[in-house]
Amino acid sequence: MNSTSTQVYLNSSVLQQLNATIQAYLTDLVSTGQTFNSSQIVSENVRFTSGTLVVGLISIYFIYQWVFSKSKLPSAVQFKLYIPDAAHKHWKGKRMFPCSVYNPEQPHMIQSYCPATGQFLGSFKSMSDTDIDEIVLLAERAQLQWAKTSLKERLQVLLSLKNFILENQEAIARVACRDSGKTMLDASMGEILVTLEKIQWIIEHGEDVLKPSARPGPTNFFMKWYKGAEVRYEPLGVVGAIVSWNYPFHNLLGPIVASIFTGNAVVVKCSEQVVWSSKFFTLLVQEALKACGHDPNLVQLCYCLPPTGNDDAANYFTSHPVFKHLTFIGSKPVAHHVLKAAADSLTPVVVELGGKDAFIVLDSVKDLQALSSIIMRGTFQSAGQNCIGIERVIVSAKNYDALVSILNDRVGQLRLGSDIDNLEDVDMGAMISDNRFGQLENLISDALSKGAKLLHGGSRYNHPNYPQGHFFQPTLLVDVTEDMQISHNEVFGPILTVMRAKDTDDCIRLANAAPFGLGGSIFGADFGECNRVANSLTTGNVAINDFATFYVCQLPFGGLNGSGYGKFGGEEGLLGLCNAKSVCFDTLPFISTQIPKPLDYPIKSNSKAWEFVKAFITGAYAVSTWQRIKSLVSLAKNAN
Amino acid sequence: MNSTSTQVYLNSSVLQQLNATIQAYLTDLVSTGQTFNSSQIVSENVRFTSGTLVVGLISIYFIYQWVFSKSKLPSAVQFKLYIPDAAHKHWKGKRMFPCSVYNPEQPHMIQSYCPATGQFLGSFKSMSDTDIDEIVLLAERAQLQWAKTSLKERLQVLLSLKNFILENQEAIARVACRDSGKTMLDASMGEILVTLEKIQWIIEHGEDVLKPSARPGPTNFFMKWYKGAEVRYEPLGVVGAIVSWNYPFHNLLGPIVASIFTGNAVVVKCSEQVVWSSKFFTLLVQEALKACGHDPNLVQLCYCLPPTGNDDAANYFTSHPVFKHLTFIGSKPVAHHVLKAAADSLTPVVVELGGKDAFIVLDSVKDLQALSSIIMRGTFQSAGQNCIGIERVIVSAKNYDALVSILNDRVGQLRLGSDIDNLEDVDMGAMISDNRFGQLENLISDALSKGAKLLHGGSRYNHPNYPQGHFFQPTLLVDVTEDMQISHNEVFGPILTVMRAKDTDDCIRLANAAPFGLGGSIFGADFGECNRVANSLTTGNVAINDFATFYVCQLPFGGLNGSGYGKFGGEEGLLGLCNAKSVCFDTLPFISTQIPKPLDYPIKSNSKAWEFVKAFITGAYAVSTWQRIKSLVSLAKNAN
Repeated sequence: MNSTSTQVYLNSSVLQQLNATIQAYLTDLVSTGQTFNSSQIVSENVRFTSGTLVVGLISIYFIYQWVFSKSKLPSAVQFKLYIPDAAHKHWKGKRMFPCSVYNPEQPHMIQSYCPATGQFLGSFKSMSDTDIDEIVLLAERAQLQWAKTSLKERLQVLLSLKNFILENQEAIARVACRDSGKTMLDASMGEILVTLEKIQWIIEHGEDVLKPSARPGPTNFFMKWYKGAEVRYEPLGVVGAIVSWNYPFHNLLGPIVASIFTGNAVVVKCSEQVVWSSKFFTLLVQEALKACGHDPNLVQLCYCLPPTGNDDAANYFTSHPVFKHLTFIGSKPVAHHVLKAAADSLTPVVVELGGKDAFIVLDSVKDLQALSSIIMRGTFQSAGQNCIGIERVIVSAKNYDALVSILNDRVGQLRLGSDIDNLEDVDMGAMISDNRFGQLENLISDALSKGAKLLHGGSRYNHPNYPQGHFFQPTLLVDVTEDMQISHNEVFGPILTVMRAKDTDDCIRLANAAPFGLGGSIFGADFGECNRVANSLTTGNVAINDFATFYVCQLPFGGLNGSGYGKFGGEEGLLGLCNAKSVCFDTLPFISTQIPKPLDYPIKSNSKAWEFVKAFITGAYAVSTWQRIKSLVSLAKNAN
Repeated sequence: MNSTSTQVYLNSSVLQQLNATIQAYLTDLVSTGQTFNSSQIVSENVRFTSGTLVVGLISIYFIYQWVFSKSKLPSAVQFKLYIPDAAHKHWKGKRMFPCSVYNPEQPHMIQSYCPATGQFLGSFKSMSDTDIDEIVLLAERAQLQWAKTSLKERLQVLLSLKNFILENQEAIARVACRDSGKTMLDASMGEILVTLEKIQWIIEHGEDVLKPSARPGPTNFFMKWYKGAEVRYEPLGVVGAIVSWNYPFHNLLGPIVASIFTGNAVVVKCSEQVVWSSKFFTLLVQEALKACGHDPNLVQLCYCLPPTGNDDAANYFTSHPVFKHLTFIGSKPVAHHVLKAAADSLTPVVVELGGKDAFIVLDSVKDLQALSSIIMRGTFQSAGQNCIGIERVIVSAKNYDALVSILNDRVGQLRLGSDIDNLEDVDMGAMISDNRFGQLENLISDALSKGAKLLHGGSRYNHPNYPQGHFFQPTLLVDVTEDMQISHNEVFGPILTVMRAKDTDDCIRLANAAPFGLGGSIFGADFGECNRVANSLTTGNVAINDFATFYVCQLPFGGLNGSGYGKFGGEEGLLGLCNAKSVCFDTLPFISTQIPKPLDYPIKSNSKAWEFVKAFITGAYAVSTWQRIKSLVSLAKNAN
């Protein structure tokens, strides 16, 4: 509560973190050679160790490894990409009014514009069935060659992509901001950081994940000694992805990098809200492919308007028979349609819908000020348009009043606007469109009518500098209870909702009451208690004393119940894009399966055959050695 | 081809197998204590080792382990089950005519009868929506307690079940035969053996599979040092399964044992063709649960007639909102309906449809006689009603004529009938019903009109002893080519189809031409070549120099394309029935994630915040140490 002490705490904590990081890094630097892929490192290393022979020898070993190691990563390829004018600061795009992706005069066109400033970005023809067939065919052809590439060749594309992203953070962030209205800071953390983590995770762990997985084979006593079994991971072919608009860069790149690393071609259908930026980001990947000598057609973008009476292209895409797998990131109502269309083509779908993630504050929490910083970021980043954003802060009785008072103080200070051109000091950008404002206002008035207290915001906001912008006020709604619609409907907007719980068990009960099951956070000083809560949540993801790190960790990501099913991210995400082929084979020379004589057609004696198999089964699965030996004798008796 | 030499070969091979088995077993016996759970073993062991002190000490160690080991398996509980009269030999059940599950006079009843003999087994009321709600509710209640059981307690149920099956093989096989018309030998191998393997695999490996899986965590340079990540496997709740009639015991028990071991309740919907036996087998599991002190309602059976205009119970089952997961084993036309119904409730489905499995014979194969034995068993077991039965024998040019001649000789010797009562000497039993006979006959005449040769069989068979039985002649159809319908439509019957390929590549091409992708076998003397073929098949499962062992191995089982998607069996099968919960946590004391000051709301300076995150990202993912150090400096600069 005391702001000075908080600053000291934060600083010392950040310093502590940096300190631990650097120490761990140095240890790592000495114990492995993994970071030795720049010439500067040699001089650095020499500085740490000058004068000692042993470390000199170790350095030579590392240099040797660096030069000759077979597991060395391929080197990134530099490539150029035309950066559009709108990706620069102070771009003078004309503002449109009213702002909408639809243009009644051109019903087959999709309009792109900046939801914060209203600037017009471009107009694109909604794809038809024929257009879709064309791009799918291009992808299919490119995949035939791509399937033959080595993992190293695929890694080279990812490394080149990563390099480009690292060196062009500002342009990429600004393209994402222009099309979504978010702030540069939100883009930096929500688009660039997470995408790089995804790519880097594959670079470091991808090869291990796709190695054939040896399996124990049969337990059958007669077969276990000579049968080998493994699962091999092969490309599926062409996969599809239908992604949401809230992170135009990250949502698009996520399925692309996973798909191409696993040897597939991929066709991504972006939202009609973000066609302009999606085209640029797709081109980025295509250029990386081209620079590395591969067919850029491997990655394709589809964009079309939602289905209407005479335009069913969206469903045509979903049930396209060439797709071997679909990833759908979107909303529950659309999910039903997608799944029915995919049922026609028998395409498996990973379904990632929204959530109603709880952020649980237990009585044992010590530093409410630091905690409130996490709550603020988890709620208001990208104006709350996060599938794993904090939808409900559930506070156990002890800390409720104090935490509400801190949040009341902080939410009031938030400023709306755009930092896309000037990096002016604002906290929150625009929302993607104004079509859900009424719904959000209704959820709030329902809550107020049932006893909730509105401490800040609560309605749409007409920004004086950006009259065309889709802004909604940062909102703080407290004393929310289970009977209010807002406690079990996803908000997906900048509304901080606080609920009071009696105790830890009540926190669990409230958290599990919503019809979703995506993620959740638990904060408390007692790890055992936090862990118990983690195990009690009916969700797919949980962070203990942190917010949403399960996403950054590249753990398998996915939900339960109303949040969908299936996983992307991490091992499961990569393996889900493969044909996991079960293969079995003989491991001993000269021994292979034969049909025993009593079972060979035509059956000489059914009763003898029965006795033979019965003895075989008993010998194969009996617990006692005595039974096993008896069955071996019976087998021998009936074997001829 | 010479039958004497073949017999010698088979015998020596079986002897070799037994020999290797016993030697490996003895080694195993000495190196681990795993089989020491019977008192007989002590005396056995003493016999091997008498007189030597060292082995005496080892024995004492094993006995000590056996008595005190914590990983000791729980002991099986004996239980009694009333065995129905029809499960005994020479049962005098009255024959019905015509044989059908439908009774026009009682439209809501399902009739069970023996497809071989026509004997009436019972009549059961098709379940309504209300009946389904009732059993689902019972299962849901039982699961709340079951979810709290330890893995050892669940293993005890499986061990008790296994014991009962081992000791009652004949009764179980006969119940399966009565309801399906297959032979006792087919039941022994296709029902008892594979079910026991499934149970035993879980007993030996299940605990390891369900252990939390540690993950590498973030690659982010600033987080990797203090963030831990793991995936925990938790029960889902109530799961459903819709299973086919071809293996009434195994298809029912498979999902049951996997579901209960993972802590779930399960409701299985059996086919209307096998209600009588399914009720008995469900009772078997319920009795095992009860004997071990658990609520038998955990496992429920649903049976109802296919959907009609005024009875939609089957779809009501599929879209039941309580089910967290569905396993569907059935046909492609039904799959579309099941998936659309499951789309309403957003239930994930594992879809196991049929196949058109190729059995590839390469030029390098040496012993065609031994090979033909495997082909015969793989084609005619259970009258060809196997999802992984051999649907196409594809023979590379060199061996084609010789193999066809052997098969011609052998198929002609097969005898139809029933061994359920007398164990009389027959090779093949009845099919489940006569409703597909016309279809099979049409496939054959289409093939004949396009140049195929029918060497045996080809039509339905009116058995003199069993005039009500659904028999189809063992059929051999050779010179089948790609343009014939039978080459790309699933037969699921006793038709051995032989296709000629030019060479190995042509074998691959032909095998991949069918619109399915379940399994396949490859036979050849050159493992490298076999392996290349294995890697080229677009199927989910492949056996090299063996038939269908991927199934026995408890490898993940599932197909591609027209064969469905998702896996059951083995690790993937168990994990698919769990909520794979991604959990992350701090691993170092005193270090936890904090919002760095520049990013804390309200943002003091957007440009400083941008520089801070940019430096953070560069430091986190840069390849060169030099860049990393520069970014650390920039981070420190912008940190306040």
